[in-house]
Amino acid sequence: MKELHDLAELTAEQVEDLLALAGRLQKRPEPRALEGKVLALLFMSPSLRTLASFQAAMVRLGGGSFVISPDMSIHGLETRPGIVMDGMAAEHIREAVPVIASYADAIGIRAFAERRSLDHDLADNEFNSMRALCHVPVINMESAINHPCQSLADWKTMDDLAVPRNGGKFVLSWAYHPRALPLAVPAATVHMAAMRGMDVTVLRPDGFELPDVIMDKARSAASAAGGSVTETDDRGAALEGAQIIYAKSWSSTRHYGNRVADEEQRAGLDDWRVDESWFASTQPDCRFMHCLPVRRGVVVTDEILDGPRSVVIQEAQNRMYAQMAVLHQMLAGK
Amino acid sequence: MKELHDLAELTAEQVEDLLALAGRLQKRPEPRALEGKVLALLFMSPSLRTLASFQAAMVRLGGGSFVISPDMSIHGLETRPGIVMDGMAAEHIREAVPVIASYADAIGIRAFAERRSLDHDLADNEFNSMRALCHVPVINMESAINHPCQSLADWKTMDDLAVPRNGGKFVLSWAYHPRALPLAVPAATVHMAAMRGMDVTVLRPDGFELPDVIMDKARSAASAAGGSVTETDDRGAALEGAQIIYAKSWSSTRHYGNRVADEEQRAGLDDWRVDESWFASTQPDCRFMHCLPVRRGVVVTDEILDGPRSVVIQEAQNRMYAQMAVLHQMLAGK
Amino acid sequence: MKELHDLAELTAEQVEDLLALAGRLQKRPEPRALEGKVLALLFMSPSLRTLASFQAAMVRLGGGSFVISPDMSIHGLETRPGIVMDGMAAEHIREAVPVIASYADAIGIRAFAERRSLDHDLADNEFNSMRALCHVPVINMESAINHPCQSLADWKTMDDLAVPRNGGKFVLSWAYHPRALPLAVPAATVHMAAMRGMDVTVLRPDGFELPDVIMDKARSAASAAGGSVTETDDRGAALEGAQIIYAKSWSSTRHYGNRVADEEQRAGLDDWRVDESWFASTQPDCRFMHCLPVRRGVVVTDEILDGPRSVVIQEAQNRMYAQMAVLHQMLAGK
Repeated sequence: MKELHDLAELTAEQVEDLLALAGRLQKRPEPRALEGKVLALLFMSPSLRTLASFQAAMVRLGGGSFVISPDMSIHGLETRPGIVMDGMAAEHIREAVPVIASYADAIGIRAFAERRSLDHDLADNEFNSMRALCHVPVINMESAINHPCQSLADWKTMDDLAVPRNGGKFVLSWAYHPRALPLAVPAATVHMAAMRGMDVTVLRPDGFELPDVIMDKARSAASAAGGSVTETDDRGAALEGAQIIYAKSWSSTRHYGNRVADEEQRAGLDDWRVDESWFASTQPDCRFMHCLPVRRGVVVTDEILDGPRSVVIQEAQNRMYAQMAVLHQMLAGK
Repeated sequence: MKELHDLAELTAEQVEDLLALAGRLQKRPEPRALEGKVLALLFMSPSLRTLASFQAAMVRLGGGSFVISPDMSIHGLETRPGIVMDGMAAEHIREAVPVIASYADAIGIRAFAERRSLDHDLADNEFNSMRALCHVPVINMESAINHPCQSLADWKTMDDLAVPRNGGKFVLSWAYHPRALPLAVPAATVHMAAMRGMDVTVLRPDGFELPDVIMDKARSAASAAGGSVTETDDRGAALEGAQIIYAKSWSSTRHYGNRVADEEQRAGLDDWRVDESWFASTQPDCRFMHCLPVRRGVVVTDEILDGPRSVVIQEAQNRMYAQMAVLHQMLAGK
Repeated sequence: MKELHDLAELTAEQVEDLLALAGRLQKRPEPRALEGKVLALLFMSPSLRTLASFQAAMVRLGGGSFVISPDMSIHGLETRPGIVMDGMAAEHIREAVPVIASYADAIGIRAFAERRSLDHDLADNEFNSMRALCHVPVINMESAINHPCQSLADWKTMDDLAVPRNGGKFVLSWAYHPRALPLAVPAATVHMAAMRGMDVTVLRPDGFELPDVIMDKARSAASAAGGSVTETDDRGAALEGAQIIYAKSWSSTRHYGNRVADEEQRAGLDDWRVDESWFASTQPDCRFMHCLPVRRGVVVTDEILDGPRSVVIQEAQNRMYAQMAVLHQMLAGK
């Protein structure tokens, strides 16, 4: 494995190999596999799980890491190309990124969405411009439109729980949230579940349709894996027989980048909060998934989060094991 | 050792074993004892010594750590139970704490006092609520009412200096400080010295009495160990024959949580600043102890801090060795 | 090697040994050389390259590090001697520095220039006062007037590129920058190039002369090494035949510490921006060097930075290898 930008760049077999390795490392530690190896962690926006799980992963494999976030730099990092830097920023990513990468055997980069233009964010420009500056393997730690580490962890969590692949019904549901959030997790998640061969339903209110490019890509993965992808605003039909309800809020795509119109679009949608009533017609053992952080009482009730359906802590823990496998494949013996 | 919340949960023999191990690790490093092991360090308030000494301890034992503080998270961490999270906080400790712990083999937690209600802080509610969310061993890195790592370091420092146990006189003295500070260190310190079998005097001005529950607990430890605990505002009597003057400021307990009344209570007490005159009737080799950070010229004079009586740097260094022993007992060979 | 404060404290042979070790560690990793060893990294001002490269260096050698910056401390660190600490600062460097050092096998300290008085900064008072508080080897991670780690990296970069020593012409050129910057890098660089035996020209506009004490020290190093040091404001003469153009902005020394007069002195000097025209009469393979961070379009054009003359990324990467050698000499087998 030379890079990890998008789960779609891997075959299903490669994902299965990675997750088998993740499972082995979980059971049989290899505390010297990456001794002397360095992972650079570059965050252009804040993080909790990713920050902690990558550092822990490197320690468990005998290596180490260092963290750079823009607030550590002298006056932030300039990202605009061709600019005359006579303002506040004292350093440009064209120097900062290759320098940081040059200290490391691999680099993880988090580059969030600008959320001004949908096309711009779908092209993942920030992430790709930084990736192009690195001469070591790059791991996408969440970009404008992708989050492959979360997807690997979620796939492993469903494997651990023996959730069926073909024939399993996976509902990715929009949920209420007071702010317009990026599309990275829903885009990654619909693709992951499709690639796993599941029957995927994207459940969302009017105005929150996932972009065609994302849906088409997922449909193509589904057809290769023997699954399906549909989209609806009919909650009753969507939830019928579900094995998984995966909740996540995201921006209005109809009004992407328009804060006022987005707020109007989501006004009155605060009943898109997952509670036990959502599980009335699901499979009896239907699980609740969420990538975290989650707003309690807004996205989902305490009852669900604290009850037996919720596997959100397992998902988060599997971030570490999935990333250990990625790092092991990238760096062990190199 | 499965957890470390309160020195009172250990027997004196367990403390002695821990400190013997600390001494061995100080002399004979074991740089592979914890290879591949991870310590999570969760700070709900700032830190210098604890932050540095725990990270150093893990490196010295061949493992590693990661640090989480609330300012790293997306919008702080919510701690209130049952709340609808429609405000600034994007994550609740009910998810954050178990997730952070799930990446680690042990977790250190710092949770300071709210300093609104004495009963609330004496119950150590913040620390205990986070501790209950963890499925790995928990180390108290200072809570509202306890600081066992400081106590272990202080005990070791007195052992290193051959300060007598039974028959040694230990004076814990209140000192002036412009702000109302938590009770964690005085509460932990009076217990530690009592458990070590010393004759402990708590010297403090009117209005700064230590709570009965703390004094009673210390007296019970003293009676088991052959020592004693008394409280007084008579500086002359208290200091007579002392082996140790341990200075620390703390909130007025009479006006706990009332900032204005606390300020009035401490007004005019700025002569509670330790200087050489305090040592006129002590043992000739009486030492000055303080947990740091210390305000020079306020709590104690430069002359004392920079002179031969002060062992504050040794106390701080012993934090690392004591914590190495705790981590080794918790994690080595596991 | 017991300390690294100033390249001038080493002989040329010692520098060559260090750089030979750096080259060996670059080719043949020693991932257990410093197992269990701890490096403390104390930053009194922000950092990117130094922060990352020292952490990476310790991981590559099997040890680890921890980072302390003043914003992590409870209320900043007091540095003034003899002060009554009744203000915001809760801790003095007289405690903080020896405590931090006591957790480590070596400590790196960054202490920037106050830039109020030239004599004060030339004496490197902040760095020296902190260094005197440490009982473990101290590494200067950039002080008011020195930056030996940058100098080692720059020397190695020229060796890697086979830039001639005796007979090689090294031009340290002042460059425009909107702010008054410290003298640390120019002072260290002129000395490094002189010590390497090169013919050094300091090119700078009127009012930006390097202080006599710096120039005299460099001339003494040059005469020992068979090189020379001159200073001029004649760009054409300076650049003729140059092997290296090393650009760096610095404060007006004529108006040191006077922000308004400094701004007036640098007004109109924004043509001191390195572009291809500067290379018209240099050696054909003349390289562009800079310590980073660099302001694009201000200090140097994008064309130069992105073109084949620029070796700024190599210089930054060599920070890590040079520091690995320093740490190895200080700590391996100890």
